[in-house]
Amino acid sequence: MYKVFGDMLSGNCYKIKLLMQFLDIPHEWTHVDILARETHTTDFERMNPNARIPVVELADGRYLWESNAILNYLADGTEFLPQDSYSRAKVLQWQFFEQYSHEPYIATARYINKYLGLPKEREAEYHAKQTGGHKALAVMDKHLAENTFFLGAQTTIADISLYAYTHVAEEGGFDLAGYPHIQRWLKEFEAVPGYIKMARENA
Amino acid sequence: MYKVFGDMLSGNCYKIKLLMQFLDIPHEWTHVDILARETHTTDFERMNPNARIPVVELADGRYLWESNAILNYLADGTEFLPQDSYSRAKVLQWQFFEQYSHEPYIATARYINKYLGLPKEREAEYHAKQTGGHKALAVMDKHLAENTFFLGAQTTIADISLYAYTHVAEEGGFDLAGYPHIQRWLKEFEAVPGYIKMARENA
Repeated sequence: MYKVFGDMLSGNCYKIKLLMQFLDIPHEWTHVDILARETHTTDFERMNPNARIPVVELADGRYLWESNAILNYLADGTEFLPQDSYSRAKVLQWQFFEQYSHEPYIATARYINKYLGLPKEREAEYHAKQTGGHKALAVMDKHLAENTFFLGAQTTIADISLYAYTHVAEEGGFDLAGYPHIQRWLKEFEAVPGYIKMARENA
Repeated sequence: MYKVFGDMLSGNCYKIKLLMQFLDIPHEWTHVDILARETHTTDFERMNPNARIPVVELADGRYLWESNAILNYLADGTEFLPQDSYSRAKVLQWQFFEQYSHEPYIATARYINKYLGLPKEREAEYHAKQTGGHKALAVMDKHLAENTFFLGAQTTIADISLYAYTHVAEEGGFDLAGYPHIQRWLKEFEAVPGYIKMARENA
């Protein structure tokens, strides 16, 4: 059975939970508290030397880290990852967009606000994150004006990757009112069978 | 024939050139000047709404962006991308590590220093990048102490992704003297048949 090490309130960890629910993959979930620096123990760094969640342990004891790499592994051969080379690359394109142009703004602003309580010394950084976050949201909204999901008619792991932090963007100060296509997409995503909310009690 | 839009001095673009050389893939290269904001024209944003290089145009006119997504597309079915699901996920793991934990520190410090000439107003940001960059280099060095290349004996696109900015890390103020395994790996990578240096005249 898979073992997942993570925190359901982290979008990167929630991604793994969503896919495992959609695909009905049995797994054990171990909560890791990043504020208590549980990712910086010797045992944790043996699993992931980069000291980040999520980490997945396979049935044979091998480890895999980086949320989007884990999604590609678990989705391989399922309806959440197309088979043809171009579509797979398009999934990756949106996942790299998520990690480089979306997460560092939207997830980091949310972390500073929700987890750290917007301390004075990080206020400037918090405000600086708003521009980049809105730029990413605008790119998504434009794409979703012409596409039901990121790859077209079918829900894929690209949607899971982008849903995770977008649906809680308001916790980072991002008002989604100006993005009607994102709002429509969030609703359609939440209707996928197996969907569960981002809550620790759902882990 | 493939058309590549990029700048050879950008590590993200150089990755594409390296793989195309290794695999002997015919292509046209169009230089894009980011300082002149050539990524922000209407024509460019039609190719990539996220306004970044590199972009690849396929023979049929479709576009692909995000350097590591492009590498996965081009390497599919070749010796630079293993076939089995776990190894492919490990390649992705290191590529997402590169984009999230390596590039934003090492490439950004290099950009501020080399392209912008380390202006006073970005000095604090430049110095703040050093900690994250050294953390990434330490993770790499530890892994390379026990592995010839990132996936083991075989050169893969994970090496291409991490080589691109690591080999010019000194331009961002990172001294590689403390990372003997990275130095050994850089030399072995440069011996791969087809290797070319990062230089605009090699585009």
